[in-house]
Formats: sequence, C-alpha cells, structure tokens
Amino acid sequence: MVTNATIETLLNRRSIRAFKDEAIDDDVIDALETVAQHAASSQYLNDWSAIRVTDPELKRTLAGISGQAYVGTAPLLYVFVADEHRNAAIAARKDMDVHTDAFTLTSSYRFSQAQNDAVLALHAMETAAYSLGLGCVILGSLLNDVDKLIEALRLPELTYPVLGLAIGKPDQEPALKPRMPRSMQFFENTYPTDDAEVLEPLADFDETVHRYYDLRNTERPVDAFSDQIAAVAVDQGVASKNVGEHAAKQGFKLR
Amino acid sequence: MVTNATIETLLNRRSIRAFKDEAIDDDVIDALETVAQHAASSQYLNDWSAIRVTDPELKRTLAGISGQAYVGTAPLLYVFVADEHRNAAIAARKDMDVHTDAFTLTSSYRFSQAQNDAVLALHAMETAAYSLGLGCVILGSLLNDVDKLIEALRLPELTYPVLGLAIGKPDQEPALKPRMPRSMQFFENTYPTDDAEVLEPLADFDETVHRYYDLRNTERPVDAFSDQIAAVAVDQGVASKNVGEHAAKQGFKLR
Repeated sequence: MVTNATIETLLNRRSIRAFKDEAIDDDVIDALETVAQHAASSQYLNDWSAIRVTDPELKRTLAGISGQAYVGTAPLLYVFVADEHRNAAIAARKDMDVHTDAFTLTSSYRFSQAQNDAVLALHAMETAAYSLGLGCVILGSLLNDVDKLIEALRLPELTYPVLGLAIGKPDQEPALKPRMPRSMQFFENTYPTDDAEVLEPLADFDETVHRYYDLRNTERPVDAFSDQIAAVAVDQGVASKNVGEHAAKQGFKLR
Repeated sequence: MVTNATIETLLNRRSIRAFKDEAIDDDVIDALETVAQHAASSQYLNDWSAIRVTDPELKRTLAGISGQAYVGTAPLLYVFVADEHRNAAIAARKDMDVHTDAFTLTSSYRFSQAQNDAVLALHAMETAAYSLGLGCVILGSLLNDVDKLIEALRLPELTYPVLGLAIGKPDQEPALKPRMPRSMQFFENTYPTDDAEVLEPLADFDETVHRYYDLRNTERPVDAFSDQIAAVAVDQGVASKNVGEHAAKQGFKLR
C-alpha cells in the first residue's frame, strides 16, 4: 500500500472528545476555513455555509442540545449548513420568484446536493485540522433537537443544519477504532445478491470490535458490531428524527 | 496562513475531467479504499458501501446516464452508496423485523446520516487520490436517472446512490476555480439577518468568476456567479429530481 503524509493523516483519524483548554491561532483558523471553501461544490452552487460558534453562552446551548459536555468547551466549533438561502437571495436580485414550483433550489435534489457539499467542506476542514496535529469530532448529536438548533443559530428559510465539527488540541489518545473487512464494504460492478457471502467475515469483525477499548466507557468491553447495530436499529436516541418534516418548515420539499 | 502538504493538496483541488489512458496500480487502490474506510461514521454504523465499477460495458452505461463521456473511460470509477441493507441483514440475524415502524434504519434521519457517511468516505478517498498526484471528479450527474443507476448496479432495498467518483492520472490542467469571499460563507454565532450585507462582495465575485477560464468551454467567458445561480434555479438539468420518491422505492421513509 502506498503512503504519504496525507494518507497517514487520513488513516490515523480518530474522534477526539477531550480538548486542551488552548485557543486556536487565527492563522490556523484562516487555513481551515479556506480549505473548506476549496472542496468541490455541485454545479458550482457553493450551497453551504458554516456558523463559527464563539459565544460561550451559545456553545453551552449547543452542548445542551447535543447532550455532550465537550461541545460547550470546544476551542473551535462549527455548524455546517446546507444553504440555498444565499442563492435564493442572489436569484431574487434577478427578479426570480422563490415561491414557485419552477424554482428548483427548494427541491429535494438540491437539498440533497447542498447537504453533500456541506459534508465535503466539513471533511476538508477536518482533514486539514488533523494534518496540523489538532483533533476533531463530528457532531451529529446537534440534530437531537433540530428546531432548537435552528432557533439558536437563527437559520433562515432555505437553510438546514447538516453536521457540527468541534476542533481543538487533543487531550486524549483513543485507540484507532476497528474498520470492517474491505470485502464487506467495497463491491465490484454490482451489489452482491448474497447477503451471507457479504457477511461471511462478520463473526471475526464482531470479535475485533468487542476487544476494542473505548475511552468513553472503560468499565467494560464495547459491544460486538452486530450488537451495536441491533441496539441502534430500535433506538436512534434522537428526539427529532423526521428530516422531511423539519426540512419542510425550512422551505424544502423532500418529496 | 499555516500550511503543509495536506493543506496544499486541499487548496489545489480542482475537478479533473480528462484522464490519461493508464491503469491505477493495485497498491494505490488499496490505499484509496482503506483511507475511505477510516472516515468517521455516524454512531459507528459504517452505513455506506462503494461499488468499484471495472466492467467496460457498465462504465459505458454509467457514462450514458451521466451524459459525460469521460465517465466511460475513467481508469477508476466508484459509486458511493448509502447502505442500511447490510445493517438490516445483520439485524435480521438477531431476529429483528425490518418492516416495522420501530425499526429505525429506514428512517429519514438514518438515510440522511448514511448519506453523510458516504460523502465523508468519498472525500477521504478523493483527498488521498490528489495527494498521490491523481485527479478526480465527483459525479452528481449519475443521479440524472436514479432508477437506471439503481438497476445497473443492482442496488438492493435500503441502499441509495449518493455520488460517483472518477479517478485517474490528469490529462488536463484546469485553472483553480474562484471561491467566494469567506465573509459570504462563514458567519459568526448566528446566520446574518441582512442579506444585503452578506451579498456586499457579490459584484466583485461575479466579476472574478466571469474572468475564470473554463476548459470545458474555451470559446467564451463563463457566466458571472449570479447568472449561473439564476440559470440553475430554474433548470437543474436533472431528469429525476425527487429524492423522496426514489428513496421510498428503496425502502426509506423521508417524511
């Protein structure tokens, strides 16, 4: 397998949930934000924005939503947002009416692509942060209460929160989390028709995951992969799961 | 602004749409696929897969769907897929019933997070490819005909195609595409209430974009950013835009 500094960075990524109480330099912030802007963007629409959360009170609010205390003290905190609001404002200057069916920026396809673009930008920032020796954790947990998050960040019509990203100097050294055998995740030409064949290495992978030492709970071994899947399959632990409903309130039609 | 090899790679990313007719070495493929597997995954569900498209006939089919000839001859071609099918198969081994409302892997929240995870993995692969001197283009155009794409790759229930990625040795040197002023895309603490303030630098940015030299059409300058937005806002150029409808056919409930 070939390697270089970037590949090493990507292979050694692990979520960091404890940060040193040290601010991040402005020239680092400049690099992280500029890198995010250089990710690809569907049809060059640049249809995402990011909210840089610096207000301590607001950080605490987001920590409350996520249920994760470390969100409240993360040295750098972003929420990436799918954003057709800006594009709609640009289109409005061309006398276009946002509130017609012909206006496609409100469509499910556009919502989906804006979401992708936000994630591409976030991952570029995350990768740059790791390359500088910083650590990150991606925050899906901010979506525990989408209404409250939208209110806290005052996200207008035609925006939607996608994921958060907390960044700081790592104050922990978690072990690298096991990855499933590649044959379970990469397929050639078509998706395999035989589930049993795909899941052939599952028992071994279950055992590997079970042996993984999770810093978040050092009292007991983590559950086997299969057991984790089974647990999540009946309880997402998320209060507001209906993306379509929330997206509709923000002006998107996910039909 | 601080920099290093990874940051330079991310800042110099540009879509490559012409590849040399040279195969990619297996040890490079190993690195790219392994890197993708090390991206973060929501709730550790690993809920994506990737189809490595190597069959020339299938490549031509995908080129037809995308309307882009270079898809048919890309040395490496992947389609990243949101995948709860594998997890549902794992859950089924625990005697769980996928077809109940209590089963959350079919939910809009899970669909959304699986999509994010697929994009994180894709971007990790893309970044690793660029770091090795390869070039890439992300293929949203494969979603021009979601039904046909799903059929071609035989994507089963609880999977959904997210984006494609074509990779190869670059056979063109496009100029770096301009990015909007950071003040238009990064906001502090809350989304700005005044659109006019956000769009203050737009006229300059329009001019910058208009001067950009696009290899895809060297006959004339590209449209100003505002004009591009206005054009897309009334015509996405996509035949099958309704994600919710297609996702429902695959067993997801996007409500």
